[in-house]
Amino acid sequence: MTAADAYTELIRRAKELGVLNSCAAVLGWDHQTYMPAKGVALRGEQMAFLASLSHQKFTDPKNGELLATVEASEMVSDPVSDSAANVREIRRSYDRATKIPQALVEELARVTTQAQQVWEQAKKKNDYPIYRPFLEQIVKLKRDEAAAVGYKDHPYNALIEEYEPGTTVAELKTLFAGLTAELAPLVRKIVGAPKQPDKSVLEREFPADRQKVFAEAAAVAVGFDFGAGRLDTTAHPFCSGFGPGDCRITTRYNPRFFNEAFFGVLHETGHAMYEQNLPAEHFGTPLGVACSFGIHESQSRLWENQVGRGRPFWDHFYPRLKQTFHAALADVSKEAFYFAINDVRPSLIRVEADEATYNLHIALRFELELSLLSGDLTTGDLPGAWNDRFEALFGLKVPDDARGCLQDIHWSFGGIGYFPTYTLGNLYAAQLMDAVRREFGSGLEDDFRAGDFSRLKGWLTQHIHRHGQRYRAGELCRLATGMPLSPKPFVSYLTEKFGALYDVC
Amino acid sequence: MTAADAYTELIRRAKELGVLNSCAAVLGWDHQTYMPAKGVALRGEQMAFLASLSHQKFTDPKNGELLATVEASEMVSDPVSDSAANVREIRRSYDRATKIPQALVEELARVTTQAQQVWEQAKKKNDYPIYRPFLEQIVKLKRDEAAAVGYKDHPYNALIEEYEPGTTVAELKTLFAGLTAELAPLVRKIVGAPKQPDKSVLEREFPADRQKVFAEAAAVAVGFDFGAGRLDTTAHPFCSGFGPGDCRITTRYNPRFFNEAFFGVLHETGHAMYEQNLPAEHFGTPLGVACSFGIHESQSRLWENQVGRGRPFWDHFYPRLKQTFHAALADVSKEAFYFAINDVRPSLIRVEADEATYNLHIALRFELELSLLSGDLTTGDLPGAWNDRFEALFGLKVPDDARGCLQDIHWSFGGIGYFPTYTLGNLYAAQLMDAVRREFGSGLEDDFRAGDFSRLKGWLTQHIHRHGQRYRAGELCRLATGMPLSPKPFVSYLTEKFGALYDVC
Repeated sequence: MTAADAYTELIRRAKELGVLNSCAAVLGWDHQTYMPAKGVALRGEQMAFLASLSHQKFTDPKNGELLATVEASEMVSDPVSDSAANVREIRRSYDRATKIPQALVEELARVTTQAQQVWEQAKKKNDYPIYRPFLEQIVKLKRDEAAAVGYKDHPYNALIEEYEPGTTVAELKTLFAGLTAELAPLVRKIVGAPKQPDKSVLEREFPADRQKVFAEAAAVAVGFDFGAGRLDTTAHPFCSGFGPGDCRITTRYNPRFFNEAFFGVLHETGHAMYEQNLPAEHFGTPLGVACSFGIHESQSRLWENQVGRGRPFWDHFYPRLKQTFHAALADVSKEAFYFAINDVRPSLIRVEADEATYNLHIALRFELELSLLSGDLTTGDLPGAWNDRFEALFGLKVPDDARGCLQDIHWSFGGIGYFPTYTLGNLYAAQLMDAVRREFGSGLEDDFRAGDFSRLKGWLTQHIHRHGQRYRAGELCRLATGMPLSPKPFVSYLTEKFGALYDVC
Repeated sequence: MTAADAYTELIRRAKELGVLNSCAAVLGWDHQTYMPAKGVALRGEQMAFLASLSHQKFTDPKNGELLATVEASEMVSDPVSDSAANVREIRRSYDRATKIPQALVEELARVTTQAQQVWEQAKKKNDYPIYRPFLEQIVKLKRDEAAAVGYKDHPYNALIEEYEPGTTVAELKTLFAGLTAELAPLVRKIVGAPKQPDKSVLEREFPADRQKVFAEAAAVAVGFDFGAGRLDTTAHPFCSGFGPGDCRITTRYNPRFFNEAFFGVLHETGHAMYEQNLPAEHFGTPLGVACSFGIHESQSRLWENQVGRGRPFWDHFYPRLKQTFHAALADVSKEAFYFAINDVRPSLIRVEADEATYNLHIALRFELELSLLSGDLTTGDLPGAWNDRFEALFGLKVPDDARGCLQDIHWSFGGIGYFPTYTLGNLYAAQLMDAVRREFGSGLEDDFRAGDFSRLKGWLTQHIHRHGQRYRAGELCRLATGMPLSPKPFVSYLTEKFGALYDVC
């Protein structure tokens, strides 16, 4: 078989798998949105069937042979050619999928399924001890996974590779150290500022049906294509891109708090526009898949925070918001509203954190994950370590584990190595936005004030979306912004924005 | 391999196929309900992938070997044992699937996909000529299908076997002849009656959201389990049972006409309760599948007409209906409403037909399908033949093909042989209800007047639902009612009900 024929067959197989996996995505979405309660057992069987078929098809040794044939040819000599990029990323996933023994895959599936149910109970009852044995097993299994995959320096490198290929513990440690050193004093200044927002204006009556209409209008304005997507309601918001022409986002409405649904929708819209603008012709292959979790998060954070929590955005939307929620906002000035949605204060819960403190939550989790995985920290000592470190970072005592080390679902599904991608997302978002501002100057904010977000969306499609996985995240960032990833643009953005808002810099 | 082992493996394979096919059912439902427009191409690929995988797995020659092994054993000696019934029905489907050449399957899929789009246009524009070549091809391909499957007496026998195994052209001809002979004079008497209902009371303001609430309440009252199902809105109402614990029905709301959504929901609820009460432990095997299209339709028609268009039902629901639609019904007596929903008059459109004229529409289609398939009628002569026969049966001139031979979608998807199952459903429904009334006497109507439908539902589950495909339709009817299928209970039901209503008998 020629290399060209092998590559064609490899791509045919990848595309077929893409279609198969997209079927599971539809079923997963339905599970969260519309499935009746008693459908859960059948849905479990359906998902298990599709997952097993997908795993079986992907780990077919024939794929390894096809990869080897193409890898031995000229087709991979230009590293950013279609063929080289596709082969590089299929190889990465194929090696990972074939190196992890089937027994370990099944054990992880079994334990994490149980662990998620136990975690939910443990969080509800503030009962870490019932969850600890499951976390213990998960840490052990993830160590086994890292050993099976292989790694340099730290087992964590094998885990983060699943979410952010090419990133290392060493790199993340440097990023987090620099970031924490800058953020902690900034947050202290903000907290100590005499000028503070009145957050209560966001906790008035915001009828859910009107929130939906308003959020949908904003999603359309920034560029979400409802002809190729939907917005539905779920307990836990998410974005699921099934493939070309079909990407679904969800949110939840709190009729007594504006932020939750609105910024949630902007966040998911950012994810969704990435999915909607991936190159359709590459669907199923790495070139048709988002670059990394960190880059994906950069798109959601960019629209949620860099755009959606910015003044020009509300110059356009605030009059419309006031019309929609006249009773709640009649006595609230645009400036008071803008200050309220940019309230900064150390708080216990990551998902409720503001832009300035959010990454400190991640720094904490990153440190603890490293120690758990290396064995320096036991699961028995986790709550104490969490609480001590939290107090050092935030100056707050953690009142209970439910609001401490039990607050996130991630570890229960085995997602050790996932958290850092949130911070990477924030940093990439700031660095991308910095590059966009340099390119378009103040005209960009004029666009926003006129409710026109098309130049920004076009830039992101041009520099990020259309590339799929042609480049690894670090290289994509360098190409798009002219610089390697750095915390500087993010820190400058925060310092400038909150310095002015709080009169502190 | 022992017969017992072969049977175990056969059932394992059937259940896996059941899960696979249920994935396609979820995607099909989503296609009609929530899928964004631009998702259609991907959905097509997903459905094609799942259908091809299902066909490939089902026609695996290994299944033929397993069947042969069990068939040669004692396991099929008791014809109504689990194993004999499952083997009988898997054999029927397996033979059908393997006898039809793959090229014919693909050609049928290709032509009918196009034909459905052309039919929609043709109906909209009243342009039979653009549709005719597609119908021509479909008739030819269905003849080829019948030849491949094999048949006795008439190729139509091979086609109806897909929907109503065990039923024959000869049997249907006798049924339709008897039925038409009785219905035509009855309809003439009703039409000529001086007493006529005022149908306009159903064409007032019925807000869609309240229609939904009322229809859902009725569905719950008769026994639809919303914990294991849903009601959504689609252009074309349907019921889709994914499997145990998950059955979805749909309807459409006309805010200026009460009947459409309400009786549509009762109809789909009848289908859905059959699906919800199939034995879950047999899911994926014939014992977990509904008996036939005709028996399925008997369940929908029974709840829609025998129950839902009956007086005791409205003795319970009419006060509630009046509360829900006070403005529309304030001046309408229960008797006037009851008469209006039982309006009988010859009309052009099958799906809008009343209980008395409905089967004449089917008789017409059955005759024409037979002639098309045998070659006695050409597609060029179809409109003329339709119009002549329609006038003879209904005493009405067909003004255009859109309201004539173009009105139904069935032929465009290749569903020749499907129509008679509607009439079988009506006849089975009447005969089942006759048996139920004999068993419970007037207590049954007292139940209905009290809003209690549980004895009827229980009887249907006991005599119909729980059997799956253990018996063929004719035998199931005989066991449930003590008699072979006959048009008599249906004709007696109509004569009694409408004779009294219209004062004509």
